Formats: sequence, C-alpha cells, structure tokens
Amino acid sequence: MTRKIRLGAFLPGGGQHIASWRHPDQPADGAVNFDFHVQLAREAERGLFDAYFLADGLATGGTSEGGPARIAGFEPVTLFAALATQTTHLGFIATASTTYEEPYNTARKFASLDLISGGRAGWNVVTTATEAAARNFNLDTQHPHAFRYARAAEHVEVVRKLWDSFEDDIFIRDKETGNFLDRTKLHFAHHKGAHFKVEGPLNVSRSPQGHPVIVQAGQSEDGRGLAAATAEVIFTAHQRLDTAQEFYRDIKARARGLGRDPDHILIMPGVSPFVGRTEDEAREKYDRLTSLILEEDGISLVKGLTGGTLDLTGADLDGPLPPVAPTEGMKSRQALIRQIADENGFTIRQLYQWVASARGHYTIVGSAAQVADMLEEWFTSEAADGFNILPPWLPTGLTDFVDLVIPELQRRGLFRTAYEGRTLRQNLGLPFPVNRYAAARSAAQAAE
Amino acid sequence: MTRKIRLGAFLPGGGQHIASWRHPDQPADGAVNFDFHVQLAREAERGLFDAYFLADGLATGGTSEGGPARIAGFEPVTLFAALATQTTHLGFIATASTTYEEPYNTARKFASLDLISGGRAGWNVVTTATEAAARNFNLDTQHPHAFRYARAAEHVEVVRKLWDSFEDDIFIRDKETGNFLDRTKLHFAHHKGAHFKVEGPLNVSRSPQGHPVIVQAGQSEDGRGLAAATAEVIFTAHQRLDTAQEFYRDIKARARGLGRDPDHILIMPGVSPFVGRTEDEAREKYDRLTSLILEEDGISLVKGLTGGTLDLTGADLDGPLPPVAPTEGMKSRQALIRQIADENGFTIRQLYQWVASARGHYTIVGSAAQVADMLEEWFTSEAADGFNILPPWLPTGLTDFVDLVIPELQRRGLFRTAYEGRTLRQNLGLPFPVNRYAAARSAAQAAE
Repeated sequence: MTRKIRLGAFLPGGGQHIASWRHPDQPADGAVNFDFHVQLAREAERGLFDAYFLADGLATGGTSEGGPARIAGFEPVTLFAALATQTTHLGFIATASTTYEEPYNTARKFASLDLISGGRAGWNVVTTATEAAARNFNLDTQHPHAFRYARAAEHVEVVRKLWDSFEDDIFIRDKETGNFLDRTKLHFAHHKGAHFKVEGPLNVSRSPQGHPVIVQAGQSEDGRGLAAATAEVIFTAHQRLDTAQEFYRDIKARARGLGRDPDHILIMPGVSPFVGRTEDEAREKYDRLTSLILEEDGISLVKGLTGGTLDLTGADLDGPLPPVAPTEGMKSRQALIRQIADENGFTIRQLYQWVASARGHYTIVGSAAQVADMLEEWFTSEAADGFNILPPWLPTGLTDFVDLVIPELQRRGLFRTAYEGRTLRQNLGLPFPVNRYAAARSAAQAAE
Repeated sequence: MTRKIRLGAFLPGGGQHIASWRHPDQPADGAVNFDFHVQLAREAERGLFDAYFLADGLATGGTSEGGPARIAGFEPVTLFAALATQTTHLGFIATASTTYEEPYNTARKFASLDLISGGRAGWNVVTTATEAAARNFNLDTQHPHAFRYARAAEHVEVVRKLWDSFEDDIFIRDKETGNFLDRTKLHFAHHKGAHFKVEGPLNVSRSPQGHPVIVQAGQSEDGRGLAAATAEVIFTAHQRLDTAQEFYRDIKARARGLGRDPDHILIMPGVSPFVGRTEDEAREKYDRLTSLILEEDGISLVKGLTGGTLDLTGADLDGPLPPVAPTEGMKSRQALIRQIADENGFTIRQLYQWVASARGHYTIVGSAAQVADMLEEWFTSEAADGFNILPPWLPTGLTDFVDLVIPELQRRGLFRTAYEGRTLRQNLGLPFPVNRYAAARSAAQAAE
C-alpha cells in the first residue's frame, strides 16, 4: 500500500482566525451553533478527512484562544457524540485534560463516544496550560510543567488499563442458560501510582476500536517524551521545514528506542491554508481577513500566546516585541512565537497579523498547486505523515480546501479517493490494540 | 391550565428487571447497543414522555445495579447528546456525580447538552453511594454521607453560578463594528467555599433553558434538605400511598419554608408497571420474567440493595432476611428494602423476586385501567405530580405502556395529547431561571 497523507480538520465553529467571525461567510454565532457544526462535519467528510479535531481550554480563553468568537463553545466530547450520528466515516478527536479530569471519567466518555460512533473516537491528551483553567479547579496557580506531564503519563496509563477491563470476547449473552459473561475475562486495573488509585473495572464495555486513538501535541522535552511513549498521532506546530524534520526524526527515533513501530506514530503538523484558484486570489482572501482584525484583539492574542504576562499598554505596536519571561504555561508555543517575531523581524502589529490565522501554526497563502507542493514536500521529506488543516475562516476556508486542494492531492496519488475502513484506526492505518490481559494469558499459555 | 401528570421514562438499554436481558423481546446486548437506545428514545417520544432518564454509578454495579446486562453501558451525557439528534421534543435527564466530578466540568457538559438538544437537558444530581465507586476515584473508602451531601449542595451552587456566566443578551455580534459582546454582561463566579474554589466564567454560553433542569432523588434527611433547596424534579421510591404522601407534603412544606413556589418542585415516584389488556395477561408477563431470574443474581441484588455487606452464603433462601448493619451508602434504599421484607413477610427469595423489576420502586401488575387508577389516585391525593416509569423489560414494557396506559390517561384528561413547548422546562411547566447577575442589576437600578 502506498503511503498516503493523513488529514485532520481543526474546525472550531467560531473560526480559527481571530477576526473570522466578521467574515460575511461565517455565522457570527458559529461557536455555539450546533447546526453549523453539523454542516462542517459533513463538509469534512465530503473531503475524506480522517478526523474532525477540536481543542479545549477549560477556561474562557477570550482573544488569546482565537478571538472573541471563541470565548464560549461546546464541550467537545458531548458535541462529537451528537455529530457522530450525522456522519458515517469521519473520525472525531476530542481534547480532554489529564490535569483537571479523573481517568475513570476520561475512559468512560471516550469509550462511550467510540461505541456511539462505531469506532471513530480519538482522545487528544493535554495537560491544560493556563492559569485561568487552574483557577476554575480549586487552585490559585497551576501545577508546574513537570508535574503536569508526570500526571499525564499516569493518567493515560490508567485509562488504557481501564479500556482493557473487558476482553473482546467476554460477552456470551446466552439467554437459554443465563450465562451473560465469562467473568475470567473481566479485569480490575488495581492501579496504585503517584497520582491515581483506581480499582476498576470500567463500566463501559470495550469499544469497537479497543482503544480510541491517542493523540498528543506536546513539543517540549516532557511533551516529546510523553508523545513518543504513548501517542499514535501527534499534532505539532512548525514554521520551517527543517524544524519539522528535526521534530519528526526525533519522535520516530524516541519511539523506536522505546520498542515501538515508528509507523504507528503519525506526525501531523498544523497548516493554515489561504487557498485561491490563483495566488493573487489567495492573497486577496488573506488581506481581507487581516483587515478585519481589531487592534485590541491582536494585542490580547500576543499576550496570550507569550504566556499571559506581557503588558503592552502604551507600547508602540509598530515596534519590536519586548522580552517576555517564560511561564509554566505552554512552553513550546512561547518559544515559537518569539522565533516567528525574531526571524521575520516582525513588529508587534505584523506579528499579530501573521499569527491571527493559526496562533503559530504554518500559514500558507497560495494556489491549490502551491499548497499541494508544500504538503507534498513536507510529506516526502521526513517532516510529516499528514497535516492538521486549520481553515482560517468557515465554512469557505474548508470548502476551498476540499474543492481545490484535495483533488490536486488525489491527482498526485497522495490522498485517498474513498475511505479505506470503518474506524478511525483503520483509516489512519493504526493497529488494533491487543487487550493486555488477553495478551498476558496467551504469553503464559505459550510458556507452559 | 389543568394540572397534568408528568412522565419520565427510565430506560437503561440493559433493562430494569435483572433478568430482562433473557426475555425474547429484549436485545441481549441492549446496554451497549446505540441503535437500540435510539429506538427507545423514539418510542418514549411517541408516548409524549417528558424525558428519558438514566441513572449512573461510576463503577460496574454487576447484579446490584440491575443484573449482569447492566454491568457496562454508556456514559449518559455522551449518549444523550447523540440521542438528542434523533428526537425533537423528548427531554434527557442524565445523572452525574457531585462527589467524583468537578463543577466546572459538570456545568460544561450539561450546558453543551442543552445547546445541542435545543433546551432539553436535565441533570440528576447524585452523590454516588458505593464503595466500588470510591475505589475508582483515589479513595480507599467513600466519604461519609453528610460530607457527600455538603459537597453536593456546594457543587450545585457553583454549577448554577457558572450557568449564569453569560447574560442572555450578552452577545452583540456586530460584524460591522467588531463589537462581539457586552463585557459588562460576562460574569466571574469568584466562588470560594469549603469544597470548591472556582473563578469562572464558564466557557460554554448560557443555554436555551438558562439552566438545565435540576433533578434529585435524595430521601434521607440530608437528601430531602438538598432537594427542597435546589431540585425542580424529585424522583422518589415508595411502596405505599401514605409514605409517598408524607414525602410529598414534607418536600413541598420545606420548599415553601425556603421561599420557593412548591409548584416548581415536581415529585415523581418511580413505578414499574407490568401492563396487560387484562389483569391475567399482566400477571403472565410478571410470572414469565420472574421465572427467568437466576438465584445467584437474586442474592447479589439483595446484597447490593442492603448496602453491600450482607453475606448470604449458605443462607436459607426460603427463610427471612437476616439483620443488616446500615452503611454509608444509600441509606434510604436500605431502609426501604427492609420495609418491603418486613411488611410483606417475604422470604429472601420472595424479596429478590419482588425487587428484581425495580429495586424498591413501586411495582404494579394490572390492566391499563388498573395502572391508570393507581397513577390517578397518587396524582390527585398529594402523593405525586408525575411518575418515573421503569418498564421492566424493553422495548415491550415501554410499548405496552405507550399503547395501553397513555391513551387511558389521555381519555381521563390526565395527560397531554401533544407536547406543550420546545424545551423540557416548558413541557414540565417550570419557570425560566432569571440570570442572577441581571436580577441583581435590575434590583440595584430599581433601588436608585
């Protein structure tokens, strides 16, 4: 089988670009409009995307999260359960926090989503990196970065144990004899760790995928370690081919070092595409959205992306970005924003105009062929197994990609022309996870 | 407007009766069969029920929760989000725990469900009363009953504050000026209490109902206090008209004493109906299900309902129920089971046969007219504002009720012939909750 590009669609109903809600095409209430999300899901499925992806913050991000239109939205798992009924092949990758949720609850809701969708669920594992979120969960200040990542690793481990509570063939359900299940195939987690004590079993049965697909986006040293050990899909943000390649090779090497098959960790950088039938048309689309940015939203965005401590009151927006001390928030993103400002020699205004569309993800303005060229180059040169597409505004930014770029990728043999499987795991080419308890029994029997 | 009976439908896909999965009509995999739940929701909507209700336990209940078929199911909010898309009027009341969830997460998922369903969400507030659940959430033993109820009261209060984060008219969404919202109408909870510290605001906007409907089932002294203070619907379990009346009057009096309108607290006892075209036919249905009970499931049920500590190994099942020391679990249910055993002079076997259908809820075996007589008597004599119907097996137990009892209630003018409103709140005749911050501002302005 020829290797194909994998595609996620990152589609917050409020739009990615901080001014997208002002665009005539996008419903101003998109963030809380369920019917609009149905439309987006169907459009992504028409484009044969692998999955619909949503981030999640556990606090009103305001403009730092993508503009005022994204101050309020849906809880992603609840939303995706509803959207799953409106689609048949599209996967759904929802973000949930290892810091502010309990593994038993996490395991349940994703197993339920997997059951409801017939095997199309993914969990984007995040540690949640804002002070605002901490203050919504009984804390005055958030836990240190290293603590969050240690808890995350254990949280994922407990969830995976719980997803193995029921072996695939546990249920007998013989009405005649009354024999419902084989109790030897029901397993307790008996987990006792530094952060969690969880007995199990889960009270949701093993779902069609066995385990929903594990997704991560960590880029710091701690983040890379967690991702290499546990992730099956990694979203990542890069501004340059060389740093993307460095990240790609590093993760694959780490995975190999941990005894994992590197083909079972898909690296998917984010790409924010302004696509036109010509480059000029794409440029017009970019300029139009840029012209809709309010200065206060731009300032707030830069503050949010640099860790939340920067005060730009009275600053010259046409001067350079001042130094900012790093915080316990999203460390890699803080460094990336600084890199964008420095390498491009951007003023504060130029910086917020550039990151307004995707907050540090790669932004490309071009014809369908130019966008496809970029995707092909990254895909064929060890920088990416696929991409998480962030259409700057909706639904048109997505429709443009589906109508213009997807056919170009298909012509080049780089993208599917029909879904390969029924589950997200099958479409992504990821293996079905063998139940750990069944595996242990097989191993024990083989050794006898 | 004439007072009408309100009806909930309590429909676990695995069935209520512990042997229901063995009935030929019920899919043996009902508990984890999404399509079957869609069928049940549509059937309940055909019967003009107010709401689909689901309990939730945060542990594999095994037989104590209703038989082996209910050892694993769906997380209710995730399931209901999906079912909401398959229905247009039916409400969805999901159970969520105040002990093992955080208020910020609770507020989000129910507000999301309310947005997705267009205003049909309800939250059944429970403290979760099993040792097994405690062991899934980092505890060796569960918190004392009084602690759980104190935390529950504060949890509900925080959730309600968060649901008021956005005033109803906060969003301006003027694309021309870029004015998205009126920031004076965005509110922080700034909550600091004994159990929670939550700053807010919520990151889900105020939903169609303002607040999803608050439901409770507490019957102990602590439970009654919490319910009278905060509940809008109360599910309750009674074996006799007189205890139901005592409970009804007590709750209404407590509510009045707290300055609440007693008509805004609907008391809905559980009823498990075996309905036939004749009493004999109903009795046949009852006997058939009873004959399917396995002894070990019956013993396990009695153990679970009496607090989980009773060891019946080697006991004479045709002798009386031995004494059981009360536990920190569901106190009122333990007392109710003892009452059923004592008042009926039941042996252990007779006890489990009787409670097999509804674990202590009122069970009635009769013709449609007999069932309607009972509902009418309770409804017109200060024992009930409505009922939570627990069909013993599915879908037929529900279909029987819809086809036989509903028309009888309609003929008597006791039940609706069409949905009155678009939201659960409207159908139940409950008021729209005024936003506390808007109310405070109005009061301040009036005082000037």
